[in-house]
Amino acid sequence: MKGNTFGKAFKISTFGESHGKAIGVVIDGCPAGLEIDTQFIQDELNRRKPGQSKITTSRNESDEIEILSGISNNTSLGTPIAMIVRNKDAKAKDYDHIKDAYRPSHADYTYDQKYGIKDHRGGGRSSARETIARVASGAIAKLLLQHYGIKLFAYTSQVYDVSLNTPPELVDSSAVEDNVVRCPDKETASQMIQAIEQAKKEGNTLGGKITCIITNCPAGIGEPVFDKLQADLAKAMLSINAVKGFEYGSGFNTIELTGKEHNDEFESKDGQVKTKTNHSGGIQGGISNGMPIYFNVAFKAVSTLMQDQTTINKDGKTVVIEGKGRHDPCVVPRAVPIVEAMAALVIADHLLRQKTTKL
Amino acid sequence: MKGNTFGKAFKISTFGESHGKAIGVVIDGCPAGLEIDTQFIQDELNRRKPGQSKITTSRNESDEIEILSGISNNTSLGTPIAMIVRNKDAKAKDYDHIKDAYRPSHADYTYDQKYGIKDHRGGGRSSARETIARVASGAIAKLLLQHYGIKLFAYTSQVYDVSLNTPPELVDSSAVEDNVVRCPDKETASQMIQAIEQAKKEGNTLGGKITCIITNCPAGIGEPVFDKLQADLAKAMLSINAVKGFEYGSGFNTIELTGKEHNDEFESKDGQVKTKTNHSGGIQGGISNGMPIYFNVAFKAVSTLMQDQTTINKDGKTVVIEGKGRHDPCVVPRAVPIVEAMAALVIADHLLRQKTTKL
Amino acid sequence: MKGNTFGKAFKISTFGESHGKAIGVVIDGCPAGLEIDTQFIQDELNRRKPGQSKITTSRNESDEIEILSGISNNTSLGTPIAMIVRNKDAKAKDYDHIKDAYRPSHADYTYDQKYGIKDHRGGGRSSARETIARVASGAIAKLLLQHYGIKLFAYTSQVYDVSLNTPPELVDSSAVEDNVVRCPDKETASQMIQAIEQAKKEGNTLGGKITCIITNCPAGIGEPVFDKLQADLAKAMLSINAVKGFEYGSGFNTIELTGKEHNDEFESKDGQVKTKTNHSGGIQGGISNGMPIYFNVAFKAVSTLMQDQTTINKDGKTVVIEGKGRHDPCVVPRAVPIVEAMAALVIADHLLRQKTTKL
Amino acid sequence: MKGNTFGKAFKISTFGESHGKAIGVVIDGCPAGLEIDTQFIQDELNRRKPGQSKITTSRNESDEIEILSGISNNTSLGTPIAMIVRNKDAKAKDYDHIKDAYRPSHADYTYDQKYGIKDHRGGGRSSARETIARVASGAIAKLLLQHYGIKLFAYTSQVYDVSLNTPPELVDSSAVEDNVVRCPDKETASQMIQAIEQAKKEGNTLGGKITCIITNCPAGIGEPVFDKLQADLAKAMLSINAVKGFEYGSGFNTIELTGKEHNDEFESKDGQVKTKTNHSGGIQGGISNGMPIYFNVAFKAVSTLMQDQTTINKDGKTVVIEGKGRHDPCVVPRAVPIVEAMAALVIADHLLRQKTTKL
Repeated sequence: MKGNTFGKAFKISTFGESHGKAIGVVIDGCPAGLEIDTQFIQDELNRRKPGQSKITTSRNESDEIEILSGISNNTSLGTPIAMIVRNKDAKAKDYDHIKDAYRPSHADYTYDQKYGIKDHRGGGRSSARETIARVASGAIAKLLLQHYGIKLFAYTSQVYDVSLNTPPELVDSSAVEDNVVRCPDKETASQMIQAIEQAKKEGNTLGGKITCIITNCPAGIGEPVFDKLQADLAKAMLSINAVKGFEYGSGFNTIELTGKEHNDEFESKDGQVKTKTNHSGGIQGGISNGMPIYFNVAFKAVSTLMQDQTTINKDGKTVVIEGKGRHDPCVVPRAVPIVEAMAALVIADHLLRQKTTKL
Repeated sequence: MKGNTFGKAFKISTFGESHGKAIGVVIDGCPAGLEIDTQFIQDELNRRKPGQSKITTSRNESDEIEILSGISNNTSLGTPIAMIVRNKDAKAKDYDHIKDAYRPSHADYTYDQKYGIKDHRGGGRSSARETIARVASGAIAKLLLQHYGIKLFAYTSQVYDVSLNTPPELVDSSAVEDNVVRCPDKETASQMIQAIEQAKKEGNTLGGKITCIITNCPAGIGEPVFDKLQADLAKAMLSINAVKGFEYGSGFNTIELTGKEHNDEFESKDGQVKTKTNHSGGIQGGISNGMPIYFNVAFKAVSTLMQDQTTINKDGKTVVIEGKGRHDPCVVPRAVPIVEAMAALVIADHLLRQKTTKL
Repeated sequence: MKGNTFGKAFKISTFGESHGKAIGVVIDGCPAGLEIDTQFIQDELNRRKPGQSKITTSRNESDEIEILSGISNNTSLGTPIAMIVRNKDAKAKDYDHIKDAYRPSHADYTYDQKYGIKDHRGGGRSSARETIARVASGAIAKLLLQHYGIKLFAYTSQVYDVSLNTPPELVDSSAVEDNVVRCPDKETASQMIQAIEQAKKEGNTLGGKITCIITNCPAGIGEPVFDKLQADLAKAMLSINAVKGFEYGSGFNTIELTGKEHNDEFESKDGQVKTKTNHSGGIQGGISNGMPIYFNVAFKAVSTLMQDQTTINKDGKTVVIEGKGRHDPCVVPRAVPIVEAMAALVIADHLLRQKTTKL
Repeated sequence: MKGNTFGKAFKISTFGESHGKAIGVVIDGCPAGLEIDTQFIQDELNRRKPGQSKITTSRNESDEIEILSGISNNTSLGTPIAMIVRNKDAKAKDYDHIKDAYRPSHADYTYDQKYGIKDHRGGGRSSARETIARVASGAIAKLLLQHYGIKLFAYTSQVYDVSLNTPPELVDSSAVEDNVVRCPDKETASQMIQAIEQAKKEGNTLGGKITCIITNCPAGIGEPVFDKLQADLAKAMLSINAVKGFEYGSGFNTIELTGKEHNDEFESKDGQVKTKTNHSGGIQGGISNGMPIYFNVAFKAVSTLMQDQTTINKDGKTVVIEGKGRHDPCVVPRAVPIVEAMAALVIADHLLRQKTTKL
């Protein structure tokens, strides 16, 4: 009912406010017997951690994971896996200047309307720190996917007006971590970084696009009707802060393709069923067909600006809020591991769900 | 687990294959005491019904709704509302020619992989007839929304390369039903119809875009984290056959807007909190802010062509399938009531969920 | 939220009022490829049907099942299986005399308080006709259990003060259907029938006890903590109208057994792990251990008497209601297939849930 | 799917093994604005804590609660409330002697069968320490009940052959905590304590019965069909370790009552609807009728004995296990707050669920 749970068979429940004691997650449904490399979980968290480079927020959090249950001798027990990260560098004071103001395009006003209570310290539950829980549990989902031989990665494909146009199937996954903006093309990456630094200088912020691709996913994953694989991926992505759009396969470009142009002809190749083109994005009728699954996610520019903004406060009075605090000029590079985590959670969930489909 | 259920508080479960006895839905969670106009449900079904115009499939179904439970004296009892529509014009023979073939961009191959069983007669559960259940239950969701004063409508905003560029807030809802393509601008509508007729003549098919707008929705609806209002809307839309993309508010255009351009300043107007612009699309932090909610949905061109196509069959052999059967040259006009239904189901669900949020 | 759904992997959703058009059920989660003998479903329904013998209500319903979806060529498709039974002999007039009265120990008053609406015609959703949905879906669960070699049956072990004391493991399942009271011991059965006929003559009603036993259930079924196998069985049984108690294994007698007396020693027999005694009732830590699972269910006497009763009406005024209508003098014999159905649904659900537990 | 979650609107998810780092719970669904007295949560935990008296286990745990999220300024935020208790006195060594043995009537064998992995240290997830999560979250449910004026308490009504026969409605709740066995009658309590001490001396253990009563619960709470109030209470109780039976209202005694004796006549008293008798136990048709709700729960004797027992090990070989470790000679006194917690969780859940029932 309250929207803090994701998945049905590989189910996560998350908790924690940005300025409370801890952020955490409970995974219920990880099969028993999975080898868990806890260092890998920490490595994933480090990829989303603040303060990792010059183009991210300077909030200083070590984001050290503590595993409370469900794992013994580096093996999942089949019982719930609970993990927490304690909040350390929580400077609630940083938020005193906006205590009663509704920041533009933030969740202050809507939370107030929803709960009748506003935990103004850093956005409370609406803060991006909530994604720690996604990345930590997503890391375990990734280990499950690895166990089944499935590969998955994401990368920054656009920042503002700088975009990478290589088709996702041709992108080199190993190059993603080569630069701070997580764009696998060196030249494009450096233009993106330049754009972000320029925006930062102006106290402004930028949006962008992340592309994700999943390969070697077996055919038959995904449920018909409401829990189509693309529907769960869309929900997963739109549940990430700042995301405004999702498209898979031919996406919005599909509109200007005729049926004849769009249809993916089947062929048999080396005893395997393939399609000659892949406008379907690896999913047909909501179910994976074994071809690469790929999708794009659009992120808006961060709402917190380092410049004055006019807005109103709780009493409806016009106020000017200063540009203070520690925030990213562009959220996209740090969102790459979050997109991956959410995608891994979706695939892990559907892999397990498929296990009850046939006798 | 099996993906035939949607919603948590206003929950629907659907059933039925395209060539089985009936398509149906059970609504569990409609509050007691809602006045139900059964004619309205039938009217909504008639809007999605095949054979309604020259640009839709000629399959002839009366699609008459029968209410089996949950309503007495035109009032909801608070118990499950079950509704069915019997399949009548089911010509299973029409599908004999593709019995063992995997039609391009259809769900034949993936269903086969998933279930080990293929009910080839018309797509079985993957058929668009499944949406009858959505429209019938969506009609009741609409009645609930009306009860709370919320308005909602959708329209065709693009067919192939013909698009309507009026901002959704300025579109006249009363003009949508004036033409068979459901585009509220007469001139654009006639160009769209022309494009569809041309494609039909060529045995080809077209895709398009539907825009939906929800006004007068109270602030505070939607759940943080995973069940953000936009996340549930995205899932709802991507669960519709042929949908390839979803965007709300600034959508994919957000990528090229800076934070300064994008932020929606709050203002107090006649004692009400408003935003000067609405790039947020009426949703902030996953929760409605009282401004209009609007979004776009991209539909691919129908996969069934009235021309020969090459593909493979179950044995991996290359076969040519003929263009036969009864199908829409463009699914978009008939999808308008489906988009509305799914949107209504999401809002109805979140309205009820909000009831348990405060003491 | 609304309590019309049971099970998580093998999930049923039921609908229908006793004097509405139909009673029905949708099964979501039956694996694809199960052979479905539809005559068996009808046979099970006939076992719970009214009018089947001199000791049951004379309401005359054919209770013919119609399968609307999910089954083709006598095989489950993996899609939702919807089944309905139409109400025929619904004499709403029979209830006119109690229109505004709250019948003692019936659900009239509580439904009124819950919904603000009372569908007085025969109890609406609280009627025992609702159990048609349980028996029909339970029949399919039984077929799934048979597929896995699991055996399950129930029988009347007590009516009023007449009880059968044979340990459940020694009861002959094939004798259950030999008499109308469904007690597998001929002599005890005839005493039970006599007691019921005597009560009927006096316009009175009787309660009783049903025992159920499940054999050949594999070890490892059931979930720890909240969804322990006994917890789900208890819920299943207490969800049946008129049930007042549930006990498994040593049950309430456990209270006067010491730990030493109660503990079930393990032994290895023919390479199989067994326990020498079975006070555990086949379940330890919420999980099946391979030994027979058995439990008792207590049923109260039917609340509708064929004699005058004093009560109040909606306005709080004292009224006398006549003993009219068609009702069972003892519900226990017809409840035997209902207990079996609910037990089968629980086991089927846990069998499927176990499939996702290990890698 | 995995059974670690309880409730639908007031939903808890628990985690933790007895010899892992911590036991914890996340409450999702507590309404915003509830005043939370954290000392009360600790007090409740102290009631179930080991080592509290001479008749309980000597395991020494401070069981100090830490609240990680969801509460600020002693007020619930409407976001998930996460709470943990760290395990301190975990002497895994104590379990070395049973490392490979299947203890009689314990969950060792069944966990092994279920997961293929056995975390032998103290029972892992099957340990009674898991109930910390129930009591902590139950404390918050109790605060919600208090807010609505509902009263709830439980007490030991039987230990072995010593029983208290006062009708629950006449029991003095304030006397429950006057003695270590939690029986509100001083004389009976001292006999119970004597029986437990005698069993302890013999290295044996005893079972017993707990009675729980809920008063001032509004009419209309509970859902028809599967989630009847008694069904959810039964499940809640049978999910507690060592419970073998549940009965409410007339319970198993109902079997020997005729309909005439059993029916509860309605009467209007001071403008309120009451029943003259209360065999219904405050619930009719699965829904509360405003009268006191009461039920009994049967607990078996603890399986760990302080004497040698014969059993088998993983290899199927007969072994003798010594009576070692720290365990309760009778679990009933410490189970009283657990029964209360589970009952409070059920009522809290149904109170919230009712909020969406009417327009």
